[in-house]
Amino acid sequence: MRIVVPAGGIGGARFLRGLKAALGIGADLTEDDPTITVIGNTGDDITLFGLRICPDLDTVMYTLGGGINESQGWGRAEESFAVKEELAAYGMQPTWFGLGDRDVATHIVRTQMMAAGYPLSAVTEALCDRWRPGVRLLPMTDDRVETHVVVADGDGGRRAIHFQEWWIRHRAALPALEIVSVGAEDAKPAPGVVEAIDEADLVLLPPSNPVVSIGSILGVPGVRAALERATVVGVSPIIGGAPVRGMADACLTAIGVETSAEAVAAHFGPDLLDGWLVDTADAGASVEGVTVRARPLYMSDPDATAAIARAALDLALELKGDRP
Amino acid sequence: MRIVVPAGGIGGARFLRGLKAALGIGADLTEDDPTITVIGNTGDDITLFGLRICPDLDTVMYTLGGGINESQGWGRAEESFAVKEELAAYGMQPTWFGLGDRDVATHIVRTQMMAAGYPLSAVTEALCDRWRPGVRLLPMTDDRVETHVVVADGDGGRRAIHFQEWWIRHRAALPALEIVSVGAEDAKPAPGVVEAIDEADLVLLPPSNPVVSIGSILGVPGVRAALERATVVGVSPIIGGAPVRGMADACLTAIGVETSAEAVAAHFGPDLLDGWLVDTADAGASVEGVTVRARPLYMSDPDATAAIARAALDLALELKGDRP
Repeated sequence: MRIVVPAGGIGGARFLRGLKAALGIGADLTEDDPTITVIGNTGDDITLFGLRICPDLDTVMYTLGGGINESQGWGRAEESFAVKEELAAYGMQPTWFGLGDRDVATHIVRTQMMAAGYPLSAVTEALCDRWRPGVRLLPMTDDRVETHVVVADGDGGRRAIHFQEWWIRHRAALPALEIVSVGAEDAKPAPGVVEAIDEADLVLLPPSNPVVSIGSILGVPGVRAALERATVVGVSPIIGGAPVRGMADACLTAIGVETSAEAVAAHFGPDLLDGWLVDTADAGASVEGVTVRARPLYMSDPDATAAIARAALDLALELKGDRP
Repeated sequence: MRIVVPAGGIGGARFLRGLKAALGIGADLTEDDPTITVIGNTGDDITLFGLRICPDLDTVMYTLGGGINESQGWGRAEESFAVKEELAAYGMQPTWFGLGDRDVATHIVRTQMMAAGYPLSAVTEALCDRWRPGVRLLPMTDDRVETHVVVADGDGGRRAIHFQEWWIRHRAALPALEIVSVGAEDAKPAPGVVEAIDEADLVLLPPSNPVVSIGSILGVPGVRAALERATVVGVSPIIGGAPVRGMADACLTAIGVETSAEAVAAHFGPDLLDGWLVDTADAGASVEGVTVRARPLYMSDPDATAAIARAALDLALELKGDRP
């Protein structure tokens, strides 16, 4: 079985870990194992201090590779922050980004390989040689696509800031007037992305941020069209009118979508979605052209997460059976 | 009083600390303080993992700024090595360079500023804004000069390796057939270097490596000529036929100079040296055209080091009085 999962950071990574558990996939893949191809969001990527940082790819890689800081959900376990402290002591800006020492090594490897001319997809593959995430991790694109958030500048004007600045520095508290995917129009899907979708038996959308994670991936020309050809089941990131985690509501508001399981499914649309899992709190949700199923969706522990992944998988297999 | 000190790493940095103590210079310079301009060796500089590393400049800066690892003599106090461990876990080479986490931040700042177009002299000044070393620290040149060591390749041929690889990885144990200062011929002294020498009341040579530290500085066109115009007193790095620290003997052998206080002074020559301090163990040393004075030269503690610096200063002032 071939499965494709477009994924953002923490929510996507945890869902993927649940999916691997549901499928019995360990660190050492065998030929009989189902293959999971992850299409990672790179819209959050940022260059800080000359280092190329890919927060979502790293969160997936660390989570599936056993290196994640579990309680935090991002960054490395047993992390230290000497580099960050010292950069601040030199007066370097910004100081708001959580740059751990172990993490810095990942960024150094990536930056060096990219400076040597390797595309991000090749770099990601090389990094995964160490982490053995048990999935094939592809960036959505090798091109530079950056999510910027347009906010009021205080003088009646507007200014665009990098998503990370809005998300981390301002905790998404500055009202977002617009969310722009800079460079998306001219981007091409990374090698293997469209092929993986076209060859997939099914596609699962984890409960990642529908705007800046899944939306960013859908914004790469050719990806949405490929997904529309596939059997796609999504897991709602919204439960009872609030994001499961993160600040997806601020992103949804910015693009004029209500923060509800139903509205997010309608936003993705029936061309994209075949099935949609909602929490039991949203059991009444209905979206024309989409099979909606309700079950508990809190990824409260690995077993609960595996059960959610299993349910998404089952719905997709069921819907796939319905197709000619 | 204006003093110029061409300096390498550990030996130079400790001598400078002694000189500051002898002159009563603290972190907060006053207008009445004597000014010390340090001409730092950059021949040891190396780019590793995309980071520009200047070991000698940093050793001087950290030592005089209170950030040095005292027992080791180089690197930062309270240092950790998470980045280095992680780079090794990714299979990155080389693994033999002692890259500490705190130190990495310095290299990141330097690399970023250099990528933005700042010359090394401006970068060094910016780094010193934080460390307040109480001296003016100038790199010998803003151009790239790299000390390479030619060694036998095992097949009857020769190969050149970076000084750091020879020094750290091979502990200077591979016989050096030749020591080459790559780029020296085309290098220009950094802004202020020649001016500082010409305006100096006296120049002191600390007990730095006479080949790869002082020799490297002398190899920048124009520097030796300027020093020959000045009153120069050197402190022998060789005591009783052995280097005070480090592996200067291996470097001296490579250039055909005997490892003795006398031979090093003769190698520098009377055009450069006016006075030469040797240890009491070498009291019989004599070099034509150079005033040799013997006193204890082990920099065993800060007081002993300050007394050595004071003796060098006194000899220089005395010799200067002798000049027209």
